[in-house]
Amino acid sequence: MSLLALLAAVAASPEPATPPAKALAPAEIVAAAPAAEWVAIAASDLLVMDLAPDNAGHPRRVVIQLLPAPFSQGWIGNIRKLATAHWWDGTSINRAQDNYVVQWGDPDGEDKVKAKALSEGLAVVPQSEYSAKVRTEYPVDAAGMAEEVRFPIVNLPHYQDSYGYSGFTSFGWPVGLTDDTVWPVHCYGTVGVGRNEPPDTGTGAELYAVIGHAPRQLDRNIAVVGRVIEGMEHLSTLPRGTGDLGFYKTAPERTPIRSIRNGTDVPDLPAFEYLGTESASFARYADARANRRDAFYIQPAGGVDICNVPVPIRRRK
Amino acid sequence: MSLLALLAAVAASPEPATPPAKALAPAEIVAAAPAAEWVAIAASDLLVMDLAPDNAGHPRRVVIQLLPAPFSQGWIGNIRKLATAHWWDGTSINRAQDNYVVQWGDPDGEDKVKAKALSEGLAVVPQSEYSAKVRTEYPVDAAGMAEEVRFPIVNLPHYQDSYGYSGFTSFGWPVGLTDDTVWPVHCYGTVGVGRNEPPDTGTGAELYAVIGHAPRQLDRNIAVVGRVIEGMEHLSTLPRGTGDLGFYKTAPERTPIRSIRNGTDVPDLPAFEYLGTESASFARYADARANRRDAFYIQPAGGVDICNVPVPIRRRK
Repeated sequence: MSLLALLAAVAASPEPATPPAKALAPAEIVAAAPAAEWVAIAASDLLVMDLAPDNAGHPRRVVIQLLPAPFSQGWIGNIRKLATAHWWDGTSINRAQDNYVVQWGDPDGEDKVKAKALSEGLAVVPQSEYSAKVRTEYPVDAAGMAEEVRFPIVNLPHYQDSYGYSGFTSFGWPVGLTDDTVWPVHCYGTVGVGRNEPPDTGTGAELYAVIGHAPRQLDRNIAVVGRVIEGMEHLSTLPRGTGDLGFYKTAPERTPIRSIRNGTDVPDLPAFEYLGTESASFARYADARANRRDAFYIQPAGGVDICNVPVPIRRRK
Repeated sequence: MSLLALLAAVAASPEPATPPAKALAPAEIVAAAPAAEWVAIAASDLLVMDLAPDNAGHPRRVVIQLLPAPFSQGWIGNIRKLATAHWWDGTSINRAQDNYVVQWGDPDGEDKVKAKALSEGLAVVPQSEYSAKVRTEYPVDAAGMAEEVRFPIVNLPHYQDSYGYSGFTSFGWPVGLTDDTVWPVHCYGTVGVGRNEPPDTGTGAELYAVIGHAPRQLDRNIAVVGRVIEGMEHLSTLPRGTGDLGFYKTAPERTPIRSIRNGTDVPDLPAFEYLGTESASFARYADARANRRDAFYIQPAGGVDICNVPVPIRRRK
């Protein structure tokens, strides 16, 4: 059975049972999820960016979860090397374009004379790594487990959007998919790798985070490497740049980066966990995002796009 | 022919002709659009909010375009009355929830003793006004002109999204639709009317603007009254509130509103224009948003959601 045929079969399955009289809001479903449904995120999958304190002297820490295999591991290997080398320390946030992205790295990166030398041994990753291949035809078990990719796809109640099919991997990541390809999608908070024109794919030294409506046109055109899981407001509230593409025109406008470290090198880092995307609570949560039945709502939408179902992530309890 | 049948027929039409060798980016298509394709926005359809200057003393003006008929005119009439009465002067921005909304009005609005008295004669608008009715079956001309609603729907190249069908009205507004109903959708920058639990629909005195991924679950559940067309960054960069739902916990955190005025009462207001959604350039722009073929891209998305096709708006040239 092909993946798309499987998805179509799932889509035709009956509606969920009649909701209870007092329907829960998505946040209430998440709050009620039992501890066993939460999955720890390894510190080794975290990247911690400390910006210079704000004008009031408050610290600004941004915590990023890096994508697990099979996605983008070439760039992520580079990013870990750069963090180990403290390469970003003293660089800055150089761009903030409203409803699009905040971008950071070497402000002189495009200047062949002044550019900061990169760490040695960084991989040059091919464009083919923007997505992962799956076999067109393969045996699947009831949960949709594919032999080759080895992760099931969890469907949204209405999983087809303007861009095609989408779903969640068993390890909690939103992806787009066709019959033979799966790729991480660009949602609010997604972190990706800045690059020049193709076939350049970037090294990972130049990174961006999405601060607006999901720019899904970037999917499969640029490497997704992670998502912001704490401190997003330190990026989304940055003053917008007034130069082309939201780049800051002058150096003082840039926000200094004190350090970027691998999570395993940050002693005071709390543990984080996400609500397992194969859990019963996640299914209820996704259904409630698509069909709000709590007291504030009078008209359930009847569908939802994947970037409007953010995977719940919190400090581990 | 039903509206949905019409849409299906349009969707089955052939692909656009082969793109030129050097394809333009959406912004380039917009920049090249002839003057005749741009449509002036009347000053009477504008609402101008002046916030207190920022810490550096820079003015912060937010310009909002109000929705034309047939949508939300009851609330918009109230908003014009409140602006004429200078009702908002001295109120504040009271909420900023990351990836959701910024909200403003009377910070004591929920306090029956301290709440500021509203202007007299405000309409109480029924929930049915969240959308406009169209007839299920009606004669349409080639452009899809409906007898009753009197505006054609312009299709996106892939106009069906997770929430159903969507398109643009002839007057430049993104809408969702079924066979018998059309409603304005919630995208980044959309302005709507805060309210209490249903059947309350709000007066228009409490307003919000979307600062994150499109919260389409609000469609048909709350009144959309406009969109921010200039100064969006003055809202999107506000510090996020740390109380429940992003409300500020203390009064000093709130941003004071100096004034909100109808556009006709603002002498120094520039004129604005939007790229007509029935124009050839808009069709090319929407197609390019769905299928990027400019040099940076290697994989056109093959579709786009309506909130990822923001209607181009600029100061009138």
